[in-house]
Amino acid sequence: MKITAPTLLLDKSKCLANIQQMSEKAARSGVSFRPHFKTHQSAITGSWFRDFGVTAITVSSVDMAIYFAAAGWKDITIAFPYNPRETERLKSLTSMAAINLLLVDPSTVRLLGKSLDSEVGFFIEVDAGYHRSGMTLDHYHEMLDLLDIASRFPNLVFKGFLSHFGNTYKAESPAAVRNIYNCSMEQLVKLKDALSGTYGDLTLSVGDTPSCSILEDFGGADEIRPGNFVFYDVMQSRIGSCTPGQIAVCLAAPVVAKNKERFELVVHGGAVHLSRESICAENHENFGLPVSLALSGWSQPLPGCRVSGLSQEHGVISVTPEVFQSFEIGDLIGILPIHSCLSVACMKQYFTLQGELITCL
Amino acid sequence: MKITAPTLLLDKSKCLANIQQMSEKAARSGVSFRPHFKTHQSAITGSWFRDFGVTAITVSSVDMAIYFAAAGWKDITIAFPYNPRETERLKSLTSMAAINLLLVDPSTVRLLGKSLDSEVGFFIEVDAGYHRSGMTLDHYHEMLDLLDIASRFPNLVFKGFLSHFGNTYKAESPAAVRNIYNCSMEQLVKLKDALSGTYGDLTLSVGDTPSCSILEDFGGADEIRPGNFVFYDVMQSRIGSCTPGQIAVCLAAPVVAKNKERFELVVHGGAVHLSRESICAENHENFGLPVSLALSGWSQPLPGCRVSGLSQEHGVISVTPEVFQSFEIGDLIGILPIHSCLSVACMKQYFTLQGELITCL
Repeated sequence: MKITAPTLLLDKSKCLANIQQMSEKAARSGVSFRPHFKTHQSAITGSWFRDFGVTAITVSSVDMAIYFAAAGWKDITIAFPYNPRETERLKSLTSMAAINLLLVDPSTVRLLGKSLDSEVGFFIEVDAGYHRSGMTLDHYHEMLDLLDIASRFPNLVFKGFLSHFGNTYKAESPAAVRNIYNCSMEQLVKLKDALSGTYGDLTLSVGDTPSCSILEDFGGADEIRPGNFVFYDVMQSRIGSCTPGQIAVCLAAPVVAKNKERFELVVHGGAVHLSRESICAENHENFGLPVSLALSGWSQPLPGCRVSGLSQEHGVISVTPEVFQSFEIGDLIGILPIHSCLSVACMKQYFTLQGELITCL
Repeated sequence: MKITAPTLLLDKSKCLANIQQMSEKAARSGVSFRPHFKTHQSAITGSWFRDFGVTAITVSSVDMAIYFAAAGWKDITIAFPYNPRETERLKSLTSMAAINLLLVDPSTVRLLGKSLDSEVGFFIEVDAGYHRSGMTLDHYHEMLDLLDIASRFPNLVFKGFLSHFGNTYKAESPAAVRNIYNCSMEQLVKLKDALSGTYGDLTLSVGDTPSCSILEDFGGADEIRPGNFVFYDVMQSRIGSCTPGQIAVCLAAPVVAKNKERFELVVHGGAVHLSRESICAENHENFGLPVSLALSGWSQPLPGCRVSGLSQEHGVISVTPEVFQSFEIGDLIGILPIHSCLSVACMKQYFTLQGELITCL
């Protein structure tokens, strides 16, 4: 494979190891594994999960559900608040796969219930501290209202409670991740205990990548739904979810200019390739970690180097004098992305190190 | 047009007014108008420029040059440092259109010169203070080396000096933009004066959107290359390049949840739709400005409201109590993007208010 322009590379062996590690952990912990497919966004990468016994998946949009249903997945949770504008597309989807939805508001349940002509499962989305969407424990009576309305529609099947502990992404240490997980789970377990008598066997579905990577015991959870772990990224490595060596995707970017006064490499590789996601590390904005590329993969992050600037097509990489000397215009340099989900969404395709093209939704 | 999922809308009349205003200003100021097509990225939108007499364009990648050459554009400047890995594609491009390149390093000129079998124009890219790429005045002797090497290859035709004053994007006022422009132009004029005797009629090509929008007199410049002005965005409105009413693109996003304690609307519309670009306004991170949508277009930004959070598919909009009351789950809300170039790159297509689909590169 001759790389001439920014190209996203996948180290398939790292990716498979990430999938294996997480599926084994789920099995050890006695929880179901329903991986989120929003990171890799590809039917091909998705198919690799089948070898690890995965039969149920999570997605974040109706579009993504349709794409993976067409690829043969028969059990899909759309982990996004139900959008009443998509009822017709949702209905066509139910003939392709068993679908679970998130409901967060009693007022829309009646609308949905009236429209359905076949069964869908639903979870109540719980906000356990992330404060993005979902109902908090303070809304317990609204949850009961919601369940009461839903119970009038036999096509609406209550499955349990689902939560995304997205506040772990801001955690500064594994201990902080554990703390968020335990506080959040406590609330979910309380809800399940309160309603199991009435509704029978309910599922608690959780599982952001930091929690799933760092914890060994998912105490109380029935199902985990991590997504990012399939590729990991710089943000996850900083939280402590993975080592830099587990990051499975890397942007290959051609060096197009060098600035010797500032020890900077300019590359073709910008915000339309990596996304504008950044982290602040040691008071510097960082848009990615440079690595050396070889045919067999890439190196550990080059010490003292970072992507310090990013515009639409340009990346600026601040490097050490030694690294500066070792790259010439026309060379390729690798960049580990800050947020792999967004880099994949930007690039829409990637290549394995063996040169296999993997297309996305 | 029934909108069910996040959809980028274009107000064509605003877009045409933006093009007209800039093309008239260029004519008044006696400079050539070579608009950058990296913002709209569409052959259809590009075709509208022909009615304003535009025949020469700017792009930021070889891919984009090939796309617009195929759409019939015959005079294209690739405003990105020449990437030696793309020489073969560049050569095939020269049979489709007259191409200008940027050169920033003497060492690659020989390589390029040897490969070419037909003429390409080239500019020396000048760093006049932005410090992304380009040669500074301190590199005057390297510029002479570069020109000396280039002069041995008849297919390399020296056109002049090109600079992107990208530091205007960080300017806090129109006065600051004018100041950056004038300081930067002074350096370019000095270079042109020094080399016109030897090289004849040289072109000074400049033109970021803030400078081109705010200045009336481009003193010394021969050509302007603004791009973002075609749609503008929240960032440009904050700099003072445009009014919010001139912003020609808007993401229509379905409201999927409401949080009455925090006065927040949750929408389907996230980082994969708007990009992660943000500005900091009044100590708050802002990912977009909400507006009300109507069939005929959209309102001014809703006072006191902003997109306060953005994940892959979710947007969280902080609103006033009045606005909170006026939106229900299932409604559409509009979001003016912080950086329209990146939102277009994320969405890859947009619709006019009349329902015409406009596809992108």
